Amino acid sequence: MIIDCHGHYTTAPAPHARFREAQLARLADPSLPEPAPAEISDDAIRESVEPNQLRIQRERGTDLTIFSPRASGMEHHVGDPATAAAWARACNDLVHRVTELFPGNFAGACQLPQVAGAPLDDCVAELERCVTQLGFVGCNLNPDPSGGYWTSPPMTDEYWFPLYEKLAELDVPAMIHVSTSCNPAVHTLGAHYLNADTTVFMQLVGGELFARFPGLRFVIPHGGGAVPYHWGRYQGLAVREKLPAIVGNVMRNVYFDTCVYHQPGIDLLAGVIGPGNMLFASEMLGAVRGDNPGTGAPWDDTKRYIDKLGLSEQDRRQVFELNARRVYPRLAARLPAAT
Amino acid sequence: MIIDCHGHYTTAPAPHARFREAQLARLADPSLPEPAPAEISDDAIRESVEPNQLRIQRERGTDLTIFSPRASGMEHHVGDPATAAAWARACNDLVHRVTELFPGNFAGACQLPQVAGAPLDDCVAELERCVTQLGFVGCNLNPDPSGGYWTSPPMTDEYWFPLYEKLAELDVPAMIHVSTSCNPAVHTLGAHYLNADTTVFMQLVGGELFARFPGLRFVIPHGGGAVPYHWGRYQGLAVREKLPAIVGNVMRNVYFDTCVYHQPGIDLLAGVIGPGNMLFASEMLGAVRGDNPGTGAPWDDTKRYIDKLGLSEQDRRQVFELNARRVYPRLAARLPAAT
Repeated sequence: MIIDCHGHYTTAPAPHARFREAQLARLADPSLPEPAPAEISDDAIRESVEPNQLRIQRERGTDLTIFSPRASGMEHHVGDPATAAAWARACNDLVHRVTELFPGNFAGACQLPQVAGAPLDDCVAELERCVTQLGFVGCNLNPDPSGGYWTSPPMTDEYWFPLYEKLAELDVPAMIHVSTSCNPAVHTLGAHYLNADTTVFMQLVGGELFARFPGLRFVIPHGGGAVPYHWGRYQGLAVREKLPAIVGNVMRNVYFDTCVYHQPGIDLLAGVIGPGNMLFASEMLGAVRGDNPGTGAPWDDTKRYIDKLGLSEQDRRQVFELNARRVYPRLAARLPAAT
Repeated sequence: MIIDCHGHYTTAPAPHARFREAQLARLADPSLPEPAPAEISDDAIRESVEPNQLRIQRERGTDLTIFSPRASGMEHHVGDPATAAAWARACNDLVHRVTELFPGNFAGACQLPQVAGAPLDDCVAELERCVTQLGFVGCNLNPDPSGGYWTSPPMTDEYWFPLYEKLAELDVPAMIHVSTSCNPAVHTLGAHYLNADTTVFMQLVGGELFARFPGLRFVIPHGGGAVPYHWGRYQGLAVREKLPAIVGNVMRNVYFDTCVYHQPGIDLLAGVIGPGNMLFASEMLGAVRGDNPGTGAPWDDTKRYIDKLGLSEQDRRQVFELNARRVYPRLAARLPAAT
């Protein structure tokens, strides 16, 4: 079995985006009526997924995608808690319907109604709803809800602890994932996403978060940002700053996904970080679409790169399936047992 | 000859830092007298360099370091133009004295008196002074003088053009280098430096700056941040966003240094970016000091990694010497001709 831990519902039916537009219009003009989430038929959902994610799963030979709302659409910078809560709920409900229509192909990971500087109560409640009522197996957690200005405290700060307690209680991981950048200096897909991965990793290196939350698990997407390429830098910095060794302090609880879109990057990830901390992921139909003219294959067909690593069968199963089952234990309720 | 294009005067004599403290004290209490730069003897400068940078040059077999003031000490976030101008001048004058005492070992690159949001006139003037009067061969240019909040426009914006015009006129390159991060979420050495490299590269991919300034040259340090590891992502994004091909639009004018502190990172840099766009650099006595316990060699002894690449003699000379002579043509006045 091949589990892709990183997919977003980038092909949601258009009425869903119109609900969002109506939300934003009402924020600009509070005299407008409160909009209701879009009415979307099962057929519309099937049509949004069948020729897209399901087709690609079949073509590439992957089985299940851990599926979450569109990341750049989370828009946590829109600073109204009620709007954020309604938007997260609508996005998650739509993902839930995908997972109900195609239970063998998708498991849900939820968007949280974060607002920079606000308490996390609404996030805790939405996480609990999605996991206990909708069968979701994880969530996306935005370390910078300001959208490119980094106004929130580091993820080692106690600000985040109420959410970590709920994650631990529910035994689900968080993927660290920012949303759109509002900062004109920082491109969303070409800078902000990767910078966030790098920034949070260094926050974790500089703290001892997992001593306090030993069961907490984070997935850092996009191959860990700049981290594997600069692994020596992090090792040396940890020594210079008299921090605990990274392997024991961070790498028991942190996993890097494989959303790195060329062979040399995946080669480096596997060589430096190793199969024990890698989770297969493609982010198909995500940031980077289209084919590499040099190979004729899609940039985001990361399975091809991993297939070329020459991993042992055991390592290969770790990357494609067993690590994901360990990090997302609630997958077990949705899947046949590993053999 | 081996030219190291990235060194900072991290061992400047202590009175220099006391001058800075006095500057900051006067900003807090304007009734204090305006401080004068520290009086530092030639012997004190020799003693600060001889057992440090010069010893390491001898030990590692490198020849000349392009030497600039301490990067994290630039502190462009301190928003007083007169203070910034006096601080840059004092830092550059001290580097100049190093280059005069050891002309075969050091060439200068200057700090600019940047202030977020302020016009660049003072920067243009200091660049001109350093190049035409002090014999400097380049400068460091901070894309985020706010120190971790990214309040300046992208480097493709016309805000920066007066400086680019002077760089082109003087035929000197800029190394893109941020200073200390004031943002508690963003670690200076483990996140902000690498994020800046990544962010600026994407700014350049998204613009057509070098069509307007064909002679302008940037060095992106720390191996280009996350860029080489995610080279496929950038190629795919450029196609998706209908941007010009990166090789023609960016890579004729942009060079990555080799401050990547482990063998797999340098292997990837050389394999993906190639010797034509690599400049040897170590940032010795910089962010990462000490030895890799796995190899017994210093993390920042990047020459060892390059020596192991198995480059042809021509490629090796490009990386160690010829690219630097091309990017920094004013080195020619300080060096014997290339043979």
